[in-house]
Amino acid sequence: MERLQRKERVAAIVKILSDNPNKVISLGYFSELFSAARSTLSEDIAIVKRVIETLESGRIETLAGASGGVKYIPGMAKRAEEEFLQELCSMLKNPERIIPGGFLYMNDIIYSPEISSKIGTILAGYFIDRNPDYVLTVETKGIPIAIMTARALNVPLIIVRRDSKVTEGSTVSINYVSGSSKRIQTMSLSKRSVKKGSRCIFVDDFMKAGGTAAGIIDLMKEFDSTVVGIGVLVEGEAPVKKLVQNYVSLMRLESVNEEKGEVIIYPSNIGVVR
Amino acid sequence: MERLQRKERVAAIVKILSDNPNKVISLGYFSELFSAARSTLSEDIAIVKRVIETLESGRIETLAGASGGVKYIPGMAKRAEEEFLQELCSMLKNPERIIPGGFLYMNDIIYSPEISSKIGTILAGYFIDRNPDYVLTVETKGIPIAIMTARALNVPLIIVRRDSKVTEGSTVSINYVSGSSKRIQTMSLSKRSVKKGSRCIFVDDFMKAGGTAAGIIDLMKEFDSTVVGIGVLVEGEAPVKKLVQNYVSLMRLESVNEEKGEVIIYPSNIGVVR
Repeated sequence: MERLQRKERVAAIVKILSDNPNKVISLGYFSELFSAARSTLSEDIAIVKRVIETLESGRIETLAGASGGVKYIPGMAKRAEEEFLQELCSMLKNPERIIPGGFLYMNDIIYSPEISSKIGTILAGYFIDRNPDYVLTVETKGIPIAIMTARALNVPLIIVRRDSKVTEGSTVSINYVSGSSKRIQTMSLSKRSVKKGSRCIFVDDFMKAGGTAAGIIDLMKEFDSTVVGIGVLVEGEAPVKKLVQNYVSLMRLESVNEEKGEVIIYPSNIGVVR
Repeated sequence: MERLQRKERVAAIVKILSDNPNKVISLGYFSELFSAARSTLSEDIAIVKRVIETLESGRIETLAGASGGVKYIPGMAKRAEEEFLQELCSMLKNPERIIPGGFLYMNDIIYSPEISSKIGTILAGYFIDRNPDYVLTVETKGIPIAIMTARALNVPLIIVRRDSKVTEGSTVSINYVSGSSKRIQTMSLSKRSVKKGSRCIFVDDFMKAGGTAAGIIDLMKEFDSTVVGIGVLVEGEAPVKKLVQNYVSLMRLESVNEEKGEVIIYPSNIGVVR
């Protein structure tokens, strides 16, 4: 690579770190790439650190020692997170989103790459300290936010299927009772997808009673693995008693009133906003 | 925001553009954010352009005029793309991936955020000039690469379901014949998900005969919309005659020999690599 000036090198380091969230990049790598001394790079990285802090878009960690290097942990300022969730709530309160049966149409939001990547960054922030090995989700609607969470955490995504598929080899299947409809459902996962003794984060778009999350906890036991965190975009207000404890939800859906055309939803960690 | 020096500002601009692929950010926005004159910012952006070009990770476009601004189009050098696909082929050739029935286990690859985001960048590069409004996929396995393609293109993702779901409101369903098994299958899409007259890119993980892609073309006709591009990660060698023309595949799977434990797969645009 042609010789870069500091201003260019700093920008290049930001690009590389930003493209590789939560991954340690060694100083040696940068040193070779830019033909620059480690001492020069340490100064560069101090600047990178300041830039990321100023933008409030996460943090830079430097790791000392032979295996040392630098990594970028994506993040969002608390205030920006709240504004973003308020904005999502405003969008979701549109009465045109009400679907007969009291459901809320959310696909355009949860399938938007711009929105789902922000959701992924926020959810990852809650779980990064739990050192997960995987992000798990159940097909279908939770997949976009789950892969974005996995991306921010730099861990593989695992998609649990509703049926076992021939293309996945031998599978482990469990039956579970959905918490709200009390129907028996099946979920199935390829045997080779999860290593024994893994720590998993379960991510989904919606939680009602938590039956699916409880099912995932059981399924992971079959893999001698543990669910160390549960994160959902929206939780339903009812039933108040969920089948799982210790989950993170970003928004709480209080009610969908088809007759009045009224949706009450608010960010989970702050007061009611109608 | 506190006053930044050029080296910091350039890095901050790279971060913002990189987080917002294919989105025009106005000079006015940067000017306000950094309390910097437009002339200063134009010089900053010339540096940003050089950095992205040097890293060979896409390009920066500047748009003149009142609605002007700057956008970052993610990309990968042709050589890096070839190396990446060669590496995927090496991984996929591992005989342990062979699943009874002649299938190949790919989930760990297509669900990896690091790999799927690169695949998304590559596929987006083939379709960006077609000005798509959406990226479409059919549940389930294609979703991670499809959302990453949508992210690079900065357009919404649309997920076609195998069954119609109550949470999606009224749907349009079509029956189609899968090209390889000749079975009749159904696909279904929420009526409100696609605007009339849209241009869509269909993305999937695997194409055998192309029946699903042909079904998607028919489904889009019901929405008065057009499929302007088809991109798949892997295409099967057989059948040679596909049900669709004009698709992009990144790799071609020639054969999976269960007895010999041999997988022959190679990047689509270059010679056979065994």
